[in-house]
Amino acid sequence: MEMLEEKLKIDKISKGTVIDHIDAGYALTILSLTGIDESKNLMTIGVNVSSKKYQTKDIIKIENVFLNETQMQQISILSPNATISLIENYKVIEKKKVELPKIIKKLILCVNETCISNSNEPIDTEFLVLDEKPLKIQCVYCERIYNLEAIVFTSKEKKEKKIIQRIQL
Amino acid sequence: MEMLEEKLKIDKISKGTVIDHIDAGYALTILSLTGIDESKNLMTIGVNVSSKKYQTKDIIKIENVFLNETQMQQISILSPNATISLIENYKVIEKKKVELPKIIKKLILCVNETCISNSNEPIDTEFLVLDEKPLKIQCVYCERIYNLEAIVFTSKEKKEKKIIQRIQL
Repeated sequence: MEMLEEKLKIDKISKGTVIDHIDAGYALTILSLTGIDESKNLMTIGVNVSSKKYQTKDIIKIENVFLNETQMQQISILSPNATISLIENYKVIEKKKVELPKIIKKLILCVNETCISNSNEPIDTEFLVLDEKPLKIQCVYCERIYNLEAIVFTSKEKKEKKIIQRIQL
Repeated sequence: MEMLEEKLKIDKISKGTVIDHIDAGYALTILSLTGIDESKNLMTIGVNVSSKKYQTKDIIKIENVFLNETQMQQISILSPNATISLIENYKVIEKKKVELPKIIKKLILCVNETCISNSNEPIDTEFLVLDEKPLKIQCVYCERIYNLEAIVFTSKEKKEKKIIQRIQL
């Protein structure tokens, strides 16, 4: 009976954002990368939830939080099929799919030390998206190619942030 | 109406573990530290959920996963009031409070470089728990004192793992 009580408490989000159809296993990485994990607002997260469209998926609901353009792009890199719904009065007032840009600027580091983006020149990183899923991107300067697992993200604090390698338990 | 559907899908856990009464904001750190975040099983997580007992709390439900002694101790360090419930057939069959040991062995690193636990000697770290909440621990070798925010955990991969500093947004 206790479970039932928790359910009611957890699921009420009157106003905020639902990030749905996240690739299974990527919700926690998305929370960390976007900085949403530091929010003091109510969040509910489902990981490895069964889905009709795909086999499993993740889902995040956050109260009183709305995403900015950088966060939407970060999500599109990790989960190009993710959808973003805006909630008001418990209802979806807007729903959109994230859009992976053709060129990803600033959000990813090139780990090639000799790449000009790592020199003292004030040059922002730029990666051309070769394939969406599985992701394949190429540095426009040194032409190095990366898949999703090899990507190192730039974080808010300008420190490197490596996405968590998912391991089959 | 879509929300309602998701709710049903997310909340069914027939068999597994519920970690409840986690200090607000620590669920994601617990998932990462214990390695549960790498599970392929269904997980639902509530962060900053309103609570009767405390003001807000976090809660984690994981299907088909049962915690080992190391994971329970890691949780007790981050959230000494957490409770662990074992679920079978949608019912709680056992419920216990985590127990913070009087001496914490191996789970935490001493960052004092001159501490003997950081020498080439095969000495496991040991910390005496001075206060439970807020946590205050002392290295039994070099006597350096740490609060929760200063703790560096040892992780499965023997790499250092710093708990995420929570920031008011």
